[in-house]
Amino acid sequence: MQIAMVVYDRFTALDVVGPYEILSRLPDARVDFVAERPGAVRTDTGFLALTADKALREVPRPDIVVVAGGPGTLAQLENEALAEWLRAADATSAWTTSVCSGSLLLAAAGLLRGRRATSHWIARDLLRRYGAEPTGQRVVFDGKYVTAAGVSSGIDMALTLVGRIGGDEHAQAVQLLTEYDPQPPYDAGSPEKAPAHLVEEFRASSRFSLT
Amino acid sequence: MQIAMVVYDRFTALDVVGPYEILSRLPDARVDFVAERPGAVRTDTGFLALTADKALREVPRPDIVVVAGGPGTLAQLENEALAEWLRAADATSAWTTSVCSGSLLLAAAGLLRGRRATSHWIARDLLRRYGAEPTGQRVVFDGKYVTAAGVSSGIDMALTLVGRIGGDEHAQAVQLLTEYDPQPPYDAGSPEKAPAHLVEEFRASSRFSLT
Repeated sequence: MQIAMVVYDRFTALDVVGPYEILSRLPDARVDFVAERPGAVRTDTGFLALTADKALREVPRPDIVVVAGGPGTLAQLENEALAEWLRAADATSAWTTSVCSGSLLLAAAGLLRGRRATSHWIARDLLRRYGAEPTGQRVVFDGKYVTAAGVSSGIDMALTLVGRIGGDEHAQAVQLLTEYDPQPPYDAGSPEKAPAHLVEEFRASSRFSLT
Repeated sequence: MQIAMVVYDRFTALDVVGPYEILSRLPDARVDFVAERPGAVRTDTGFLALTADKALREVPRPDIVVVAGGPGTLAQLENEALAEWLRAADATSAWTTSVCSGSLLLAAAGLLRGRRATSHWIARDLLRRYGAEPTGQRVVFDGKYVTAAGVSSGIDMALTLVGRIGGDEHAQAVQLLTEYDPQPPYDAGSPEKAPAHLVEEFRASSRFSLT
């Protein structure tokens, strides 16, 4: 079971490290962090780099594709080499997935046309531009296409996927090992729950907008 | 506000990437991933390397210390250079923290003597060996010492810390941006909640034991 984690300049680390931590515990998992060029790839904050051990072209037929999101997504929307790789990998993948604004890259590659999908709440409406149907769920399954909401939601997506692939008991074992028993000290993790003025401020300053 | 994320060979990626993603959004945050020697540091699965941009000695006085856990912790328990750095950094830190088995390294450095602390559930009892008092809470504050339970719990710890440092509203903004509205598909994230035979199996095969 080969799992390709797709990263690029200014991606958001937790988008992929969350799912990696869960999916790498699938039986016979082999995870490859991939980027257009192999080597250190810097995250959105500039404070961290992850190593992409392989170039995209070295991993042509992964069983699972996970595409990161982050502020760097916008620059990748015009990256035709990435879109081509995504289409080719998707032709043979068992699961094609994304976290956060990564779904925009799947959509821009033409893979989510007519499908239900999600994204970071601030970028969700942009999915329409590519013919996808945005939904407010945290994890959205539409056939083999699985999209997750913002940043931390990839953990929930991955655990759900482990259950589908490895069975409920295996997923529970992974949840126990990663001690995933979340107890957030606040309840502001979605635009419906957070103080309205915070939601407005982020919307006003976002570069992920339809206009 | 300088934040040092301490990593070493065979650490668990989510232990530090969770807190990094949250703490890096503190006002004026500067995060440094540090290791004994700078460069790529490989995680426990072998599938991922993170770059430690700096050596421990280049970051002598961080405001916040976050120590990763993972299978590699055991080898570090005898690392006197790391213990010395931890003691020196702790002498001036505002917060000294750990995720997962990282608390064993704080304890082995003598920093948790007589203090309440936690760790990954499978390693928790080992804290006693170093004079700390293990507790079953997910995030434990004892003065400036903050320890978190296994792997994913660092996100809860970091968000709590952001609230203490930056105020509730700032923490809520970070929660909203990272869309931290967890919806685990199972409820097996602690030894009290998981199927008992899974807990027993992991305990039986663990190398983190008192004997």
